[in-house]
Amino acid sequence: MSKEITNKDKDYSQWYNDLVLKGGLADYSAVRGCMVIKPYGYTLWENIRDVLDGMFKETGHVNAYFPLFIPKSFLSKEADHVEGFAKECAVVTHYRLKNDPDGKGVVVDPEAKLEEELIVRPTSETIIWNTYKTWIQSWRDLPILVNQWANVVRWEMRTRLFLRTAEFLWQEGHTAHATSEEAVAEAEKMLEVYANFAEEYMALPVVRGVKSANERFAGAVETYCIEALMQDGKALQAGTSHFLGQNFAKAFDVKYLSKEGKEELVWATSWGVSTRLIGALIMAHSDDKGLVLPPKLAPFHVVIIPFISKNPDETQALREKANEIKSLLKAKGIRTQIDDDETKRPGFKFAEYELKGYPVRVVIGPRDLTNGVAEVARRDTGEKQSVSLENIDQTIDQLLEDIQKNLYQKALSFREEHITQVDTWDEFMDVLENKTGFVSAHWDGTPATEDKIKELSKATIRCIPLNNKLEEGKCILTGQPSKQRVLFARAY
Amino acid sequence: MSKEITNKDKDYSQWYNDLVLKGGLADYSAVRGCMVIKPYGYTLWENIRDVLDGMFKETGHVNAYFPLFIPKSFLSKEADHVEGFAKECAVVTHYRLKNDPDGKGVVVDPEAKLEEELIVRPTSETIIWNTYKTWIQSWRDLPILVNQWANVVRWEMRTRLFLRTAEFLWQEGHTAHATSEEAVAEAEKMLEVYANFAEEYMALPVVRGVKSANERFAGAVETYCIEALMQDGKALQAGTSHFLGQNFAKAFDVKYLSKEGKEELVWATSWGVSTRLIGALIMAHSDDKGLVLPPKLAPFHVVIIPFISKNPDETQALREKANEIKSLLKAKGIRTQIDDDETKRPGFKFAEYELKGYPVRVVIGPRDLTNGVAEVARRDTGEKQSVSLENIDQTIDQLLEDIQKNLYQKALSFREEHITQVDTWDEFMDVLENKTGFVSAHWDGTPATEDKIKELSKATIRCIPLNNKLEEGKCILTGQPSKQRVLFARAY
Repeated sequence: MSKEITNKDKDYSQWYNDLVLKGGLADYSAVRGCMVIKPYGYTLWENIRDVLDGMFKETGHVNAYFPLFIPKSFLSKEADHVEGFAKECAVVTHYRLKNDPDGKGVVVDPEAKLEEELIVRPTSETIIWNTYKTWIQSWRDLPILVNQWANVVRWEMRTRLFLRTAEFLWQEGHTAHATSEEAVAEAEKMLEVYANFAEEYMALPVVRGVKSANERFAGAVETYCIEALMQDGKALQAGTSHFLGQNFAKAFDVKYLSKEGKEELVWATSWGVSTRLIGALIMAHSDDKGLVLPPKLAPFHVVIIPFISKNPDETQALREKANEIKSLLKAKGIRTQIDDDETKRPGFKFAEYELKGYPVRVVIGPRDLTNGVAEVARRDTGEKQSVSLENIDQTIDQLLEDIQKNLYQKALSFREEHITQVDTWDEFMDVLENKTGFVSAHWDGTPATEDKIKELSKATIRCIPLNNKLEEGKCILTGQPSKQRVLFARAY
Repeated sequence: MSKEITNKDKDYSQWYNDLVLKGGLADYSAVRGCMVIKPYGYTLWENIRDVLDGMFKETGHVNAYFPLFIPKSFLSKEADHVEGFAKECAVVTHYRLKNDPDGKGVVVDPEAKLEEELIVRPTSETIIWNTYKTWIQSWRDLPILVNQWANVVRWEMRTRLFLRTAEFLWQEGHTAHATSEEAVAEAEKMLEVYANFAEEYMALPVVRGVKSANERFAGAVETYCIEALMQDGKALQAGTSHFLGQNFAKAFDVKYLSKEGKEELVWATSWGVSTRLIGALIMAHSDDKGLVLPPKLAPFHVVIIPFISKNPDETQALREKANEIKSLLKAKGIRTQIDDDETKRPGFKFAEYELKGYPVRVVIGPRDLTNGVAEVARRDTGEKQSVSLENIDQTIDQLLEDIQKNLYQKALSFREEHITQVDTWDEFMDVLENKTGFVSAHWDGTPATEDKIKELSKATIRCIPLNNKLEEGKCILTGQPSKQRVLFARAY
């Protein structure tokens, strides 16, 4: 077995990298911090994208495309935004290369220096609001409900495949509204879209909440987020939706004439999820054998492995049966692959498809053919059963539903077991160090205390849950009065 | 009427810009040469992309994603490629900004200079073949049939919306094969996919051919292309497919172990189409009233305009009927919009949807309701007919098919009328200047003559048609012997 996977409990981080690399999802590239998304990983992204895109369109959004480059000066127009995004980014300074006078390769042509440097977009609020200025004159032009699927670049110093890469793929919604209420409702609606997507499709339970001021998006008035828990007990922010107030309208002077004939600043939201979701998917469900993928997003649902017999007629019959089953499954929308490679042994194939996380494996041998059955194995529990070929399509259809539900339930149980209420600093540290997961604790509400807690514990406030119960208490660090518990965790 | 369109015959170029801007397809942006693709234009691109993506997958291809950035040294590895692509490109030299010491905005941090500059990909052969090196060991790893949907940047000096922009969206297929024959077959297959797409979906007849050496892709052994004719008699290259030989395998040292145990260099193809197709679509079919879009790609097929009556009950009845028709059409997969805006007059709406190129307009007034009919107008010919509401869905379905065919036939007739055989230089120049279109003429086969012809006439060899008839003749410029005619034209 060339593709050995590190045990999750032994080295979680190496286990993760093994799954990404050996599972065929992505590769490192020649460019620092940038990854190559391999076909198997990209199909996963296509499935994520297609479902989300459908959800965005159902909620009235349309797609558009804005330039990759942002003039440097744009970033400075919104004071918080520039602090958050104008630092680690890719800067285009020249627009031409020329042959090296020394005859070796090419060099930057010093005469082709841009008057103003261009930044490769780390996020597109500025270029988009500079455009909206020309699109918006009156209340009739509102709301604008636009989404963009794009690549963005943030020059991260420490990168991890899918979780944090210099370039990543994402979608960014940017909406413009006539009123504050409408914009807040939009930001909340899109958070709910993300939460539904995570739970229904990724089988990933999430906590819906708002960020503390420290963790807010640079330029936002309020940042809504969904937070998920990984199997190592660390939290992962899976999506954010921002109420931007009038900050970008002010920065780019975007006003509209109201029905009453008054000039008003426009209200904004933005919201995004990225290829990071693939990292979350991997870490939420997978095991020591490899990837475990929820059927609703898996590139393939089923692999059919017909045994290769020494009798060529028998082999042929098994192949034909495999194709028959595939047609049946295809008619039900079940994505199926046949592996009848004669050069590989069944055991090798079993390990390979377990590594790749195919939800269901169907094996048929000569005796199965005689008995009119096949062996069906599910990836999540490893259970095998002998299934009648008669209605195998229905059986598998049901099985895929069961797997989807089981993955969600398992992740939900894990998450529920890993939300721990604590009331003292010692308990707090003990849970973070040993039990891990979310810690529900009182905090005095100040950014300074939050910073101090982070410094001492490496935990951050993941969110203040929506509809949080109010409860009198004392801050675990300062003992100052607090009105509600918030969720802390160490996080990706 | 605020949205006046320049007459095509008066100023073709301004007419084109009017359609793009006033038709709501795209906008100029704050970044030189980069455009904003507006929702209506982007939907057109989504429709193009979805159909092509389906065709690529049916022919066995999968999608993947490679880094946006290419290390500068990679471009120099293939000698022709560097000449073609390493010149006008966006160069990233720094990875950080910092606050301006003068307190005004941000400046490039001189300490964050990259050791090796990164080029924003103008095309991805180099980064992809550097990756394939690690994917390919034996004949078992071949073929690799990968496509990428991405943005690319070429620092063009003179840009035109959709036709030539600094950043554009495209797909680039990059395949790797064990034999030359297989790679050539792949390049030819993908040319045929493009040609079918252009003809069936864009209603755009194309000439399939190969490029002369001068016009070949930088790094290719053979460039196949499809060439279309625009209404001003200029040609437009609508797609290319390249047989790259072993050039990139050599440059990046990509070898495989053959079945016979011999180490061999890998054979390559690449092929691409871009948002330029939208420019072609606009220029092929549109008229002085605005866009004319082929139904198979149009964002919407039908607009239904119920008359607004002074009698609110009547208005309500018309609205309900409009919704009923919409439901009927939707069930047939016909993309339908209702415009019941009370603040705009019918004449204004008619002009608006003609400008936007909706293939079919349905108008219902009070009298139509009584008579059980609606007025149906087709955008391509302007014809109107009174249609029974009984089976309006079938009528419109058929009408959309007719429109699609009619657009193709019209474009085909125009193209056929504009392929002119000439045998002398004077005729050649006369056709280019007055009749315009493709000119079929003898050429002595040398790059020098081709250059000279281009210099004198501004016409280039668009292609040597596939399966070209061999015919003895004399070069129109030099009088040297020639074995076949080639197609010249002035081009976009």
